[in-house]
Amino acid sequence: MFRRSAMLGALAAPTLLGTAGLGTIGLNLAQAQPAAPLPATQQVPGVYRFKVGSFLVTMLHDGFSRRPVEGLVRNAPVAEVQQVLAESFLPTTSYDGPYTVPFVQAGPHLLAFDCGTGGQMSPTAGMLAANMRFAGIRAEDVTHVVQTHFHADHINGLTTAQNEAVFPNAEIVVPEAEWAWWSDAGNASRSPEGQRAHFANTARRFGPYAGRVRRIAAGAEVVPGIRALAAHGHTPGHTLFLVADGNAQLLVLADTTHRPELFVRRPDYQSLFEFDAAMAAETRRKVLDQVATDRMQVAGYHFPFPATGFIGRDGNSLRYVPAAWSPSL
Amino acid sequence: MFRRSAMLGALAAPTLLGTAGLGTIGLNLAQAQPAAPLPATQQVPGVYRFKVGSFLVTMLHDGFSRRPVEGLVRNAPVAEVQQVLAESFLPTTSYDGPYTVPFVQAGPHLLAFDCGTGGQMSPTAGMLAANMRFAGIRAEDVTHVVQTHFHADHINGLTTAQNEAVFPNAEIVVPEAEWAWWSDAGNASRSPEGQRAHFANTARRFGPYAGRVRRIAAGAEVVPGIRALAAHGHTPGHTLFLVADGNAQLLVLADTTHRPELFVRRPDYQSLFEFDAAMAAETRRKVLDQVATDRMQVAGYHFPFPATGFIGRDGNSLRYVPAAWSPSL
Repeated sequence: MFRRSAMLGALAAPTLLGTAGLGTIGLNLAQAQPAAPLPATQQVPGVYRFKVGSFLVTMLHDGFSRRPVEGLVRNAPVAEVQQVLAESFLPTTSYDGPYTVPFVQAGPHLLAFDCGTGGQMSPTAGMLAANMRFAGIRAEDVTHVVQTHFHADHINGLTTAQNEAVFPNAEIVVPEAEWAWWSDAGNASRSPEGQRAHFANTARRFGPYAGRVRRIAAGAEVVPGIRALAAHGHTPGHTLFLVADGNAQLLVLADTTHRPELFVRRPDYQSLFEFDAAMAAETRRKVLDQVATDRMQVAGYHFPFPATGFIGRDGNSLRYVPAAWSPSL
Repeated sequence: MFRRSAMLGALAAPTLLGTAGLGTIGLNLAQAQPAAPLPATQQVPGVYRFKVGSFLVTMLHDGFSRRPVEGLVRNAPVAEVQQVLAESFLPTTSYDGPYTVPFVQAGPHLLAFDCGTGGQMSPTAGMLAANMRFAGIRAEDVTHVVQTHFHADHINGLTTAQNEAVFPNAEIVVPEAEWAWWSDAGNASRSPEGQRAHFANTARRFGPYAGRVRRIAAGAEVVPGIRALAAHGHTPGHTLFLVADGNAQLLVLADTTHRPELFVRRPDYQSLFEFDAAMAAETRRKVLDQVATDRMQVAGYHFPFPATGFIGRDGNSLRYVPAAWSPSL
């Protein structure tokens, strides 16, 4: 299901982001002066911006969910998993899965790649709306919500708890294969038991958007410069999106890996979140190998905020390298 | 000059930050709602907060200075330096040295560790004042400016271009050894030529603070919980500060290393910024080895924003691991 040919074709152009994408040196210092100060005991909003060519990317944090480390990885002893977490100075008994939604202004189009939890999944998640307000992004200005797959933490933000549409003017763009699977309840018996709730949730979340859901095939363009790339396994239609303005590129990795400190360091680890864990691991290997070779900037939905960086080679293994923070655009 | 005994005594208590310092799970989502939105094309302020026990740390970015990679490292071929930079996906012809000032609220005391460039060194630096405003920190509320050493990018923020004091109520805390060296112009002939401007700049910047400069010895406390640790070499009196509330600890590394992507990966590289490059490298080795062993959280003045994390072991070499971003305090 991972279509190597479409992937290869789209990723073949070398990117210069890794060595030259630093923004302009002529920094406008007035940029750092928002009108209202933060209360002295408040954390900053989870917002960060960078450019991909002329496209403006805004990373918006939605919070995180916490779960035990025990049970997270299906094919490795918990003590080994804890050792890998400790190497990255992460907690070893609880595991925080962060959510960060990339918004991309591409010419006249404002796209969100997935849309968070909608504040309906975890007491520590649901910050997207507040962070959108801080970033000056209104739901009514979003022209496209692009869904990488239909897990609840990616689509619940489509609607409120009362199931009203959150994005009044957006077209919802969905991978054809993902739509085909989850819109047919006949597939329930062929789905892992832990994934069966997604059939009803898919019907519920897309319901208010009837008439403005657009299904796209792997390889198709969402808008000029933004293309779907099949990367199946995590779900039946799990799809990446390549954001490209000329040679400047960003690959929206979605759930190719969960936290990179664990699943980039050990790409063969199978998390309990996968629909088809073996296929997901094979896809992960191929995608990570390719972005490491191409030195392509990536965004990961469950990467630590601001959730953008690179995949570096470290001898025979791989490592996530966060992009250097820049005060300018 | 690096006093192993004082260092060992102070650092001996194991820290729990690496495995348990995650803040409270009971996240207040209202925290993410500042009053005024950011203009849609503006980068976010360089501000990030975290706790060290009951102490509140605010990391405030001051911008960066850009220079050629050529000439940066005195004892390695430029091609090798470029290779190390490329491994971290940094540019290979120009080198950005970022500045981030840790502010620590420790009970009634508000301390700044160094104070930035004062906007008087580089067109891309001088954002500290604006970021302080965003963070709700007023210069008049700062009770202590703690200087790690007297290089211009650390002390110029003490005064305006007209050499007026920026911090009207602060005591300026300085390492005794650093003060002794730079306040005696007779030491100029015993200083590297490139460092001689610091004698006049020291006199100029501390002038407006006459009567409220406090010299402290290595091992002495600045305020309860915050202690000076000699780490000489980068300058004759270069000093670290250990911020500790019980077992929760943060080590202010100051200029123990410049960018960690280069000088943590290659601690024997000698940068052109060092007063005594051999002693600085020896100090760097000892400090990095100790914080890696103790898994202690660190803050680095020239680390990529938000400039706090850990030093991990990677086989026989060392690597900087940024602390995981948290939306809560």
